Amino acid sequence: MADEVVLLDFWPSPFGMRVRIALAEKGIDYEGREEDLSNKSPLLLKMNPVNKQIPVLIHKGRPISESLIIVQYIDEVWSNNKSPLLPSDPYQRANARFWADYIDKKIYSTGRLVWGTTGEVQEKAKEGLRESFRVLEKELAEKTYFGGDMFGLVDVALIPFYSWFYTLETTANFSITEEFPRLVSWAKRCMQRDSVSNSVPDQYKIYDFLLDLKKKMHSIE
Amino acid sequence: MADEVVLLDFWPSPFGMRVRIALAEKGIDYEGREEDLSNKSPLLLKMNPVNKQIPVLIHKGRPISESLIIVQYIDEVWSNNKSPLLPSDPYQRANARFWADYIDKKIYSTGRLVWGTTGEVQEKAKEGLRESFRVLEKELAEKTYFGGDMFGLVDVALIPFYSWFYTLETTANFSITEEFPRLVSWAKRCMQRDSVSNSVPDQYKIYDFLLDLKKKMHSIE
Repeated sequence: MADEVVLLDFWPSPFGMRVRIALAEKGIDYEGREEDLSNKSPLLLKMNPVNKQIPVLIHKGRPISESLIIVQYIDEVWSNNKSPLLPSDPYQRANARFWADYIDKKIYSTGRLVWGTTGEVQEKAKEGLRESFRVLEKELAEKTYFGGDMFGLVDVALIPFYSWFYTLETTANFSITEEFPRLVSWAKRCMQRDSVSNSVPDQYKIYDFLLDLKKKMHSIE
Repeated sequence: MADEVVLLDFWPSPFGMRVRIALAEKGIDYEGREEDLSNKSPLLLKMNPVNKQIPVLIHKGRPISESLIIVQYIDEVWSNNKSPLLPSDPYQRANARFWADYIDKKIYSTGRLVWGTTGEVQEKAKEGLRESFRVLEKELAEKTYFGGDMFGLVDVALIPFYSWFYTLETTANFSITEEFPRLVSWAKRCMQRDSVSNSVPDQYKIYDFLLDLKKKMHSIE
């Protein structure tokens, strides 16, 4: 009971997916609790009083928030495991953190504008997303994963957004597959891992969810 | 020469200050190179082609970017040193990363609006900054430093903004000293460290710089 691992989660959240993937890579048993974000549980408000956001990992009764921080925590605590998520060399670690941070700052907010808006705002966001994908493809180059041969932090940070690809392509009318074949090959390679395929929902399911969310957003405006 | 440490920096940058403090805490000799941000050096553009921003730490010819990532790199590489900047316990490390990230997301952008705008926008930003300071004071509580007795990552992340306090108080007409005495006491405690006082410029010098910058920003609008 003292070693209990609980994850406060929400199934379409790319940030929740990151934590699910990291836990699966490490083979950690945990209890996932689905949150209703329009009516947050007292446990979530207690465990993350500052940001009140999922995901929150509760380990031995103590909460950890922010997906990339949780992934690093998991890697440090379950470090005897055969699947390290960060390299041991400090320079390579810094590099992994840099790219994970880049993804955090660029992909979510820009991607959200691509599927959540129309017209000029959408066009500008689409161009921004293209630019970020170009930068990421250049970094990926001919490597299997972002860190080389080993699946790691940067892959965990980015792969959840693969579930957005169909929505992005459909709502903004462009082909990620044609424009960024290397990125799509990488994504498919990641999806062959059970840790990823069991944690990242189907693109069509996410499409239905995001379009419903977009309608709700517009009805509030 | 191979062990050479170079810092691409800009004196009023709070992010540059963070790296200066970390290097000083570890007692690392380095060459600081001042950048002209309106005419960036070929070295900066080569070393940080993605963001083109300072600070960049160049260690053994290899660049590391993003201030908090640099601070963690310094702590990992010079780990035999007597001044650890991150705690050894994974939970405490996650906690330090959480608060450093909170400061990154809240203080810089909101503070910039407080000194850089007027009227309603400024008032709203001032309220936001107050709220963040309240949250930070609550976390600091009665501790000497954010991590307890040891000066560390969260202190390094926040203390550069002490150089903004006079500017914030003067431009937005409120007293941080009166409203947040605990935070100001903490800042003064940090400023007693040579690593900090030698890295964080005088508040009046920063005031002159920021007001000049504000004028230039408005003349562009």
